[in-house]
Amino acid sequence: MAVTKLVLVRHGESQWNQENRFTGWYDVDLSEKGRSEAKAAGQLLHKEGYSFDYAYTSVLKRAIHTLWNILDGVDQAWLPVEKNWRLNERHYGALQGLNKAETAKKYGDEQVKQWRRGFAVTPPALERSDERFPGHDPRYAHLSADELPVTESLALTIERVIPYWEKTILPRIKKGEKVIIAAHGNSLRALVKYLDNMTEDEILNLNIPTGVPLVYEFDENFKPVKHYYLGDAEEIAAKAAAVANQGKAK
Amino acid sequence: MAVTKLVLVRHGESQWNQENRFTGWYDVDLSEKGRSEAKAAGQLLHKEGYSFDYAYTSVLKRAIHTLWNILDGVDQAWLPVEKNWRLNERHYGALQGLNKAETAKKYGDEQVKQWRRGFAVTPPALERSDERFPGHDPRYAHLSADELPVTESLALTIERVIPYWEKTILPRIKKGEKVIIAAHGNSLRALVKYLDNMTEDEILNLNIPTGVPLVYEFDENFKPVKHYYLGDAEEIAAKAAAVANQGKAK
Repeated sequence: MAVTKLVLVRHGESQWNQENRFTGWYDVDLSEKGRSEAKAAGQLLHKEGYSFDYAYTSVLKRAIHTLWNILDGVDQAWLPVEKNWRLNERHYGALQGLNKAETAKKYGDEQVKQWRRGFAVTPPALERSDERFPGHDPRYAHLSADELPVTESLALTIERVIPYWEKTILPRIKKGEKVIIAAHGNSLRALVKYLDNMTEDEILNLNIPTGVPLVYEFDENFKPVKHYYLGDAEEIAAKAAAVANQGKAK
Repeated sequence: MAVTKLVLVRHGESQWNQENRFTGWYDVDLSEKGRSEAKAAGQLLHKEGYSFDYAYTSVLKRAIHTLWNILDGVDQAWLPVEKNWRLNERHYGALQGLNKAETAKKYGDEQVKQWRRGFAVTPPALERSDERFPGHDPRYAHLSADELPVTESLALTIERVIPYWEKTILPRIKKGEKVIIAAHGNSLRALVKYLDNMTEDEILNLNIPTGVPLVYEFDENFKPVKHYYLGDAEEIAAKAAAVANQGKAK
């Protein structure tokens, strides 16, 4: 039986990654560098002979534009794409828009590290009257009051990502379709923790590099048997380290 | 009751429009000019205050890229998009890839005019063994043998566009959703003929300009009551005339 593969890609650098701000659900675009990363990911997948049957992404343009660039790279702009809020980045609550280094100076590295990497720690919540509250955005008009976040931990992110994986994405993979998911640092960590049955500590120390295709292979029972990044190993390690250092004050 | 509006956009200039070749289902990309047209359409819709609930397009990248540029223009990259072969350009059979002017020289202006504008005239059919036959392309793998064209007239195009309009697009409009369709000269003519109850002669003389939003307004029974192009009237007329002249030998 042919190996079933799933490809995950974290969106390329965004304008706010560049400005070192907490982004969450704020709909910031890719930077020029992020666009190049996305194009490179598409070209790499094409070179390695990848093609897909279906694509999933979030409703945030940095992930969508990453996917569009990848689809162009593999010459599959025609591929069906499902965009769902459950693949969005973790909601960063009232931190959204703040500079990470300044926040670290004000509250201390340790508090920011807790907000960023504490498994069940939620950043300060948004007021529902805050213009940043997703309830004011038409793309979330169909969400129930319970589903609309005011802040999220990684634990809460997992709670909305995994049901989508189980009910929507996995059944498609089980039908034999080749799937690609273009999403975000934390929605992908949520999925990776689940797929690899990782502990909270393990996932907290995992940094997924931007714009690098991460391939999962499944056995005939759709259990993940191995995973690997496509591309140059040194470059990938450097990218992962860069992500890990973003929360530091200096 | 609020007026229900539908927006139609014909894709911007493609690389083969530029080379004056019969394109049909060949998946050629937009030219730089076509990309600019698409961006301009998006900016115009944004300036005029348009936003959408759902988008439809074909499975051909010149229409898809037009839509993507428009969605970026109205800042709705997150919009759900359904891509369907029924909105594809008319299939040009064995003429696909040939230069329009050379074909006119060889067969005469009148024959080419018949192939281009004869309502029920089909260009020479493709052999199923021809690499251009859509049955060889994975994006059409789910089509039945009956659905896979070897050539199409405008009449045949209508036969596959209108059921999709009736069963898929119109019900969404009836739910009150604001819909945009990015498609092709002939799939849009098929729809326009139906909406405006035009005769064969009338539709044969209608040229839809590229990259110009065409707005249809419906009454409470979802009958079209009026339609108009957005943008500068003179520019639009010049564009429509340019399309009409493409089939001439000189």
